[in-house]
Amino acid sequence: MSALGLIAGGGELPRAVAMAARNAGRAVFVVPLTGSVTEDWIKDFPHEFLSPGEPGRIIKALKGAGVAEVLLAGKVDRPKFQDLKLDAKGVLLLPKAIAAAKKGDDALLRFIVGICEDEGLTAISVAQAAPALVAEEGVLGAVVPDAEHRADIERAFKIVHALGALDVGQAAVVCEGLALSVEAAEGTDAMLLRIPGLRESLRGTADKKRGVLAKALKPLQDAKTDMPVVGVQTVKNAAAAFLAGIAVEAGAALILDKQAVAAEADRLGLFVVGVKP
Amino acid sequence: MSALGLIAGGGELPRAVAMAARNAGRAVFVVPLTGSVTEDWIKDFPHEFLSPGEPGRIIKALKGAGVAEVLLAGKVDRPKFQDLKLDAKGVLLLPKAIAAAKKGDDALLRFIVGICEDEGLTAISVAQAAPALVAEEGVLGAVVPDAEHRADIERAFKIVHALGALDVGQAAVVCEGLALSVEAAEGTDAMLLRIPGLRESLRGTADKKRGVLAKALKPLQDAKTDMPVVGVQTVKNAAAAFLAGIAVEAGAALILDKQAVAAEADRLGLFVVGVKP
Repeated sequence: MSALGLIAGGGELPRAVAMAARNAGRAVFVVPLTGSVTEDWIKDFPHEFLSPGEPGRIIKALKGAGVAEVLLAGKVDRPKFQDLKLDAKGVLLLPKAIAAAKKGDDALLRFIVGICEDEGLTAISVAQAAPALVAEEGVLGAVVPDAEHRADIERAFKIVHALGALDVGQAAVVCEGLALSVEAAEGTDAMLLRIPGLRESLRGTADKKRGVLAKALKPLQDAKTDMPVVGVQTVKNAAAAFLAGIAVEAGAALILDKQAVAAEADRLGLFVVGVKP
Repeated sequence: MSALGLIAGGGELPRAVAMAARNAGRAVFVVPLTGSVTEDWIKDFPHEFLSPGEPGRIIKALKGAGVAEVLLAGKVDRPKFQDLKLDAKGVLLLPKAIAAAKKGDDALLRFIVGICEDEGLTAISVAQAAPALVAEEGVLGAVVPDAEHRADIERAFKIVHALGALDVGQAAVVCEGLALSVEAAEGTDAMLLRIPGLRESLRGTADKKRGVLAKALKPLQDAKTDMPVVGVQTVKNAAAAFLAGIAVEAGAALILDKQAVAAEADRLGLFVVGVKP
């Protein structure tokens, strides 16, 4: 099996993917994107820091490392194009990249993946590179959603799908039918942070957990870029927002460390459930 | 012309409606909803405070004041049903009201309006009761949106319409194609407050205004309840979020004091535009 090429943005996901692939016996070469990655774990892998404006050098580095399959994972800031470090290919493609970036962050990620594919690399999904991370159907841990939670989950997925179709966000919180909070550029963590600021009649409290966080793949995403991710911190944040639980789509979301997530969910009294889309 | 019956929630809108109707020579009787209205202006009008759980008494009060046309305006908190003051009709209708409330705040408002109509009152829109408040097509003030702003306005309306169809919210902020912020239960003001917390590369700054706030009627709203409202405070809040301007749908949004809004927009360098839906 050829080495896995991991173009890495920020956050916990790229590390989890790299570790899972290495644990499965595969060589991993990392291209951390300058400006987006500051994490320490990069040092444990062969790597070369490059700018998203240097697609020519990114492809050269990956091919030089014997990579045939490539994966883009992690958070990538929309770059300031006027400050971007560019190689020759980057200069050529910049107008298209700016146009893509205007359609949303995902469009930019898809654009970068597309360049790799044009150069003969095969883009694969996190699910293919690290199948152990993919959410399965059913409850993780001991807490189970009731019928009202199931109704909230259904409504939250409807909202997320509508938003995702417009490349807006991939998460929403619904509490007894009411949409409390919807994700756009701020990200899921910041979205959860504002729940306690809502009127108490609308949300849960420390004593009575209410409402559900749902995360789903944007319909535009082809699972090669930015799959929704749930980790231990997501469970902690959902608990701090007084939520009753978290729902993801089975097969279309990642759970970074299933054992640790289940343990934390049990400790805090939340459910974490994978639902067939 | 019969007296106008105004079932009033919180916020600036009910006062603006009552003043506009009285300025046009019409008698106004107000039913401020307990728990939602604390404003002082009520004292200037004949009124009776009642709970949203007392539809029988609300209708009796309105009919006693010679009201034939009724209007519900302002913010109504989803009540805690276990604490709600109920009359006989309220007890009868409570199960339906709870079911309606679970579908979102708008469903509850539509339910209250529906009860009035069942009792022979005619529900009218703010546009009918106070046509001077309705947004018109074109720019209000001296600042004009450019082509990029127009593109952001179009994308923001697409997002708001998709959200509105699901009874989620009625406002969104888009900046150069990227959805920065989407309204749910927190309301437009709180939604704008979080823009400065986003990464600077995504948003405007004090020196360079970027992005557009769009507000639109939810497709489910029949304009008898919760039309989107822009006032002087909205302009101030949009400026504090470093936005370039505000867009509403002509004929389907309210501008509380057009002269004051235009003056504030000019002072802060923002556009305020009504767009044909």
